[in-house]
Amino acid sequence: MAKVGQFFSGHGGWIVQANHYSDPVSGRFFMRHCIRADSLPFDADGLKAAFAPIADEFEMDWQLSDSGSPKKVILMASKQSHCLVDLLHRWHSGELECDIPCVISNHDDLRSLVEWHGIPYFHVPVDKDNKAEHFRRVTAIVEEHKADTIVLARYMQILPPEICEQYVGQVINIHHSFLPSFVGAKPYHQAAERGVKLIGATCHYVTQELDAGPIIDQDVIRISHNDTVEDMVRLGKDVEKSVLARGVRSHLEDRVLLHGNKTIVF
Amino acid sequence: MAKVGQFFSGHGGWIVQANHYSDPVSGRFFMRHCIRADSLPFDADGLKAAFAPIADEFEMDWQLSDSGSPKKVILMASKQSHCLVDLLHRWHSGELECDIPCVISNHDDLRSLVEWHGIPYFHVPVDKDNKAEHFRRVTAIVEEHKADTIVLARYMQILPPEICEQYVGQVINIHHSFLPSFVGAKPYHQAAERGVKLIGATCHYVTQELDAGPIIDQDVIRISHNDTVEDMVRLGKDVEKSVLARGVRSHLEDRVLLHGNKTIVF
Amino acid sequence: MAKVGQFFSGHGGWIVQANHYSDPVSGRFFMRHCIRADSLPFDADGLKAAFAPIADEFEMDWQLSDSGSPKKVILMASKQSHCLVDLLHRWHSGELECDIPCVISNHDDLRSLVEWHGIPYFHVPVDKDNKAEHFRRVTAIVEEHKADTIVLARYMQILPPEICEQYVGQVINIHHSFLPSFVGAKPYHQAAERGVKLIGATCHYVTQELDAGPIIDQDVIRISHNDTVEDMVRLGKDVEKSVLARGVRSHLEDRVLLHGNKTIVF
Amino acid sequence: MAKVGQFFSGHGGWIVQANHYSDPVSGRFFMRHCIRADSLPFDADGLKAAFAPIADEFEMDWQLSDSGSPKKVILMASKQSHCLVDLLHRWHSGELECDIPCVISNHDDLRSLVEWHGIPYFHVPVDKDNKAEHFRRVTAIVEEHKADTIVLARYMQILPPEICEQYVGQVINIHHSFLPSFVGAKPYHQAAERGVKLIGATCHYVTQELDAGPIIDQDVIRISHNDTVEDMVRLGKDVEKSVLARGVRSHLEDRVLLHGNKTIVF
Repeated sequence: MAKVGQFFSGHGGWIVQANHYSDPVSGRFFMRHCIRADSLPFDADGLKAAFAPIADEFEMDWQLSDSGSPKKVILMASKQSHCLVDLLHRWHSGELECDIPCVISNHDDLRSLVEWHGIPYFHVPVDKDNKAEHFRRVTAIVEEHKADTIVLARYMQILPPEICEQYVGQVINIHHSFLPSFVGAKPYHQAAERGVKLIGATCHYVTQELDAGPIIDQDVIRISHNDTVEDMVRLGKDVEKSVLARGVRSHLEDRVLLHGNKTIVF
Repeated sequence: MAKVGQFFSGHGGWIVQANHYSDPVSGRFFMRHCIRADSLPFDADGLKAAFAPIADEFEMDWQLSDSGSPKKVILMASKQSHCLVDLLHRWHSGELECDIPCVISNHDDLRSLVEWHGIPYFHVPVDKDNKAEHFRRVTAIVEEHKADTIVLARYMQILPPEICEQYVGQVINIHHSFLPSFVGAKPYHQAAERGVKLIGATCHYVTQELDAGPIIDQDVIRISHNDTVEDMVRLGKDVEKSVLARGVRSHLEDRVLLHGNKTIVF
Repeated sequence: MAKVGQFFSGHGGWIVQANHYSDPVSGRFFMRHCIRADSLPFDADGLKAAFAPIADEFEMDWQLSDSGSPKKVILMASKQSHCLVDLLHRWHSGELECDIPCVISNHDDLRSLVEWHGIPYFHVPVDKDNKAEHFRRVTAIVEEHKADTIVLARYMQILPPEICEQYVGQVINIHHSFLPSFVGAKPYHQAAERGVKLIGATCHYVTQELDAGPIIDQDVIRISHNDTVEDMVRLGKDVEKSVLARGVRSHLEDRVLLHGNKTIVF
Repeated sequence: MAKVGQFFSGHGGWIVQANHYSDPVSGRFFMRHCIRADSLPFDADGLKAAFAPIADEFEMDWQLSDSGSPKKVILMASKQSHCLVDLLHRWHSGELECDIPCVISNHDDLRSLVEWHGIPYFHVPVDKDNKAEHFRRVTAIVEEHKADTIVLARYMQILPPEICEQYVGQVINIHHSFLPSFVGAKPYHQAAERGVKLIGATCHYVTQELDAGPIIDQDVIRISHNDTVEDMVRLGKDVEKSVLARGVRSHLEDRVLLHGNKTIVF
């Protein structure tokens, strides 16, 4: 920590924010520094070169992000619009700093909405028999647009293992339950069945094991015996979209560090 | 509903509160009326007799509680004091209307605290080999004191099936997780392992299946990667005690109606 | 209560929901019944005629709403889009049952967004010198569209007394503070100045006294010293839009009853 | 920041936690380092001497706290016990690390409770005519016990200006409203009058201006039209005691830095 602080202050760097965390179990140390680019005598490549010896000395896993080159985020949706509308509005009003090269959906319902925002819309249908073909086309679109993040905004399809493996820590999903409760399909029905008094949503990175990836953010809302499954669906939408938006924002600002199957969120 | 309203208004009854719920799935109808005793021309037995024909006509499952005869509640604890102190303080300051004939614990640690409140303390030790004997003594104490409610205030022992069966809807437990996540032992360790961002507590009626009984109330508190298991234990205590107190209060006011494995909480 | 229950059950009415509240201070009694129209042998006018004698007998202030004739709601906005987008999306996805005959704004910025939803957009500019003229035109539009509700979705102009008086209990505003803290302009600046640890939003009916009308709903979000006024503005948007949406929903379902300067929200 | 990090790492110091905040308005920089004492080659005085030159160089306002010498905290209460019981229980169970040399109250009601914890109890009566004398005695007790923190656990008396001035940043109060709403007496009555939908509590440092000192923590709880002032008092107690406990804990861990009339809470 001292060496890193010294490196930046030695070069006149203005540290806007610095976060640290030392995991007491694994002994690993995590940190994130946010430095004003114009306070340093380097460009991004110059900084990388200058910092590399320190990183090597301490055997750091590290990366440098330039907030001037926003991430490329592809949104995937199905028929439900609440999470997609929410993310698009935040992007449109300047709240989420990223590029959205396109939206991919297995239905055509949300095309007009997306195109109103000036964003291309790819309709890639899927059914039981063409899943492999569907995901080949999806992967092709993602690669073509050089996306570094995929957000499953209620996409409702399970990604094949090869995509999970290829995009570790880059695919964000919103699950409509307070995980690890109610993994899998129809979590609100499961919640109604169990008679819980709070329902929730979980934003997590996608891994090969269904709904078991590292959790970025979660939240809940109170319900009562009076609320039917339909009420839960409606009330849950508000939690889903706010949790997903918070998780995506943290990811875009490089505040989320993976630590095994957990996250450090600075 | 109309007949019940008519019955009470016909006798000059002053309805302080009336709650109804019609379950859309089962079609069952639930209601609770709270009537000022001094507005009726009956005592409790007279009221029962007068109301019985209406109850029969509609095949009601019904009961009458006289708030002038508070419930007899036995608290059971182990070594941890937070839930017990909280309930005793609420009772002592007049917030929880009930009698507490005694406290039962498998340890002697909390005797002085309980006795300061003027409540008898029974130390009934338990170990692997004397569980049957332990629960025979517990049952004897409960029966001797004619308790109608047992509150497991972090009692940490699994009740045998015969007690669960004998006291259906009368034994309240606080589980230190947001059920159905993290059933069983050491839920905060399970939560730390999974990397959740909220921890919770669940107040429920005890049934034979572990941590699977009807949920009365739940709540959560936000944590971060920074919080160790020890922090979770500390933060969780606050949720546990407030959820348990709310659940017990609802039970004491006869606001909780059982509906299969769920609750209606009016 | 008994008479009303009897009236509906006597006519075979299926009571979907019934709420009561007796104010202990004023002694006034409030109730709301939600009855399936197809269970009654009346149309709306017939029901009114049949019920009038009971209402007269008990000197009720009462009204009948037909959920088959949704309310006509005019939204007013300025330049900020978050509340407007949120309400339009809820309406568009069928979550808010109402007609939106038009949107009125003192700026032209949100026209395209509104028109995408197929809703007419009236741009009625305002400046210091033409306020009276502005509000004459606004009133004309409201009257022309026979609106029964006006929602100020961050409209940012103070309505003149005559409009407040004409539309008592029909104009809903969202104020971006936890009222009664921080009345008036720039509440987030006031909050930053005072160093509060929670910021909030308040949905209320508009009265002649600024930000002092009956409160329908409120909520808060946690902030820290780390959050600048800009952060508060961003975080506050989420609270504003969810509180406004909840308040509007309650109003549309006739769940909000005025009681002096307070509300009963069933 | 770099210099401080370098100082500690140069001496082998193990930084358990480090927090920074740069205020964008005033330009002031705040930091808190928590270092394992046994990792340094100094005792507390040695550390002060070694660090002083760096502090001087950067014109720091600074202080060193030794967690091995817990703060001396005097609790003041009146008749209501909920906050006092809560703090005493947290202290008794080892959750709050401090010494409590005594409790001072203007009533004798809570003596037995306090003395059960093994803590001396001073009953210092107060009425309209002996306020000066009362506070002379209170001050004498505080000085005699060398207290460095005074916690007003629902003490209900306004401290005279000279005590406020003498103990800046050392007297913590819990106010039973979400300040700045409902300053002064009977805030729950004020809240009922205004018809708010959330009630709260505020933990703050006491200054000469009533209920206007720097806020340490706040929280709220949802209420409805159904809740009377008595209900608010009961529900509010839970918020008051948890907010006070969190505030006191932050203070005891030296996490609260004063910044004009605001606080930085690390």
